[in-house]
Amino acid sequence: MKVTILGNNSALPAFGRHPTAQAVSVYGDIILIDCGEGTQIQMQRYGLRWRNVHHIFISHLHGDHYFGLPGLINSMSLLGRTAPLHLYAPAELQPILDAILSVADTVLCYPFYFHPLPTEGNMVLVDDPSFSVTCFLTEHRIQCHGFLVERKTRGRKLIPEKCREYEIPAAYYEILKQGRDYERKDGLLVKNEWVTTEGPSPKKYAYCADTLFTESFLPTIMNADTIYHECTYLEKDAEKAAARFHSTATQAAQIAKKANAKQLLLGHFSSKYKELDQFREEAEAIFPNVFVTVEGTSYEV
Amino acid sequence: MKVTILGNNSALPAFGRHPTAQAVSVYGDIILIDCGEGTQIQMQRYGLRWRNVHHIFISHLHGDHYFGLPGLINSMSLLGRTAPLHLYAPAELQPILDAILSVADTVLCYPFYFHPLPTEGNMVLVDDPSFSVTCFLTEHRIQCHGFLVERKTRGRKLIPEKCREYEIPAAYYEILKQGRDYERKDGLLVKNEWVTTEGPSPKKYAYCADTLFTESFLPTIMNADTIYHECTYLEKDAEKAAARFHSTATQAAQIAKKANAKQLLLGHFSSKYKELDQFREEAEAIFPNVFVTVEGTSYEV
Repeated sequence: MKVTILGNNSALPAFGRHPTAQAVSVYGDIILIDCGEGTQIQMQRYGLRWRNVHHIFISHLHGDHYFGLPGLINSMSLLGRTAPLHLYAPAELQPILDAILSVADTVLCYPFYFHPLPTEGNMVLVDDPSFSVTCFLTEHRIQCHGFLVERKTRGRKLIPEKCREYEIPAAYYEILKQGRDYERKDGLLVKNEWVTTEGPSPKKYAYCADTLFTESFLPTIMNADTIYHECTYLEKDAEKAAARFHSTATQAAQIAKKANAKQLLLGHFSSKYKELDQFREEAEAIFPNVFVTVEGTSYEV
Repeated sequence: MKVTILGNNSALPAFGRHPTAQAVSVYGDIILIDCGEGTQIQMQRYGLRWRNVHHIFISHLHGDHYFGLPGLINSMSLLGRTAPLHLYAPAELQPILDAILSVADTVLCYPFYFHPLPTEGNMVLVDDPSFSVTCFLTEHRIQCHGFLVERKTRGRKLIPEKCREYEIPAAYYEILKQGRDYERKDGLLVKNEWVTTEGPSPKKYAYCADTLFTESFLPTIMNADTIYHECTYLEKDAEKAAARFHSTATQAAQIAKKANAKQLLLGHFSSKYKELDQFREEAEAIFPNVFVTVEGTSYEV
């Protein structure tokens, strides 16, 4: 499970940095979180295939988090997509997208499902065999959601040649994945560890979108393996951060520490900062495992 | 007067080529024609200052011609623009922009004027001392406009040190620009050509946006110095071009020839073509002075 950064800047593109977008890869599926202007071009640049995208999540309706969405949706149609696409976003986006398609006389050539985000509380949005996504509210100038992406275990991993060697019928494979042994008709007890290895473990990635410093969603993101937390500003600009419902690098690190996370990804940098080294230094003073995200880079969760 | 290409591709960004946008520079003013996704980033890349943009023209409401507009409008506000901005676009765009601003709880911090384009015939949209812009209808799948940008002469150009040498009062300068001589009180007749040089000549740039091959707007663009004409396809794909209300390189050249233009800029290439040499070859067989536009390149009109 990894997160590829497509845009790490705040509202204004600057210094070659783009507005927010991230691709979370889980077992080959790509979950797109936010979709700032230029996302489809960034996906091309970094080799992310839209065919693997089935779910898009939009945190809130400030343009730097969704102005790339109409272009991406449209391009998928022009490129002949047939697989369904699920969009999870604040309800007010639906009439805007409808109008954009309508004035262009465009009918998407694939099934497109708009799922409005709740205005209160957490909600499990997707619960697939491979992963789940839950939204939670942050504290921003307008309604804004974070997303908790949880990779599920797929049980133990089969060693195909060993399974064949011990002549285990394919019908029994799912049971092997659960860790059970297999007793053959000739009485041999095939131990599970002879024919399987440990499978991928569950993982938690918490995307804490634009927000004031707040502990309100701490219970939801507790013990996440990786937390992304916005830090538009450095601590010296904490007043400006608060006035604009944003956070500082120090505050992001405090959240990661309180949440008992394993690592912290920083992003959503203000265009007033050309150099970003201070963001890492500031956060590392509080929490040890910090990455100042770089566009085109993938981070293991 | 020059045209800087910010995007030269058709609907899908491909091979590093972006969707349509052009900046026409006239006496330091920048006129933006179409505004595909990524235009604000392309402007940064090629050093075009939004402070010099006062007029934006959108040909039609297919996304590849305007999905960069909300981001640009928004960024100008975040960057503290105070000068008015005039947008000329199909009327249906206004409620979409209003909704985009409203859901973000954004009020632009500069005067923003939306001017709906007419649904029939030509219309003079801007008539400034320096330039005028007239729209004309093309033939596309949805309502679509081309734009004729005409640079006006500013009369003859003063040679300041000569004007001072002959002690001509500043109040007489505008009359000098009109080509008149000046008679001093001591009786000396200061010949106009002693104190002025030839000024910039009138120029015509015709932007022929997405369109079928049609001669319907030929009278409007007649004798243009430079014509931009879309050519999404090569002639071998002429059937596809017609079915999609687009043109071929051959057809673009035929229009340039019939319009008695001095040069032809080609753009809006389909993403099916990686190499573009054949577009030039095809057009040059009909019309001699052809440029296959390149992003970031400026073309003298």
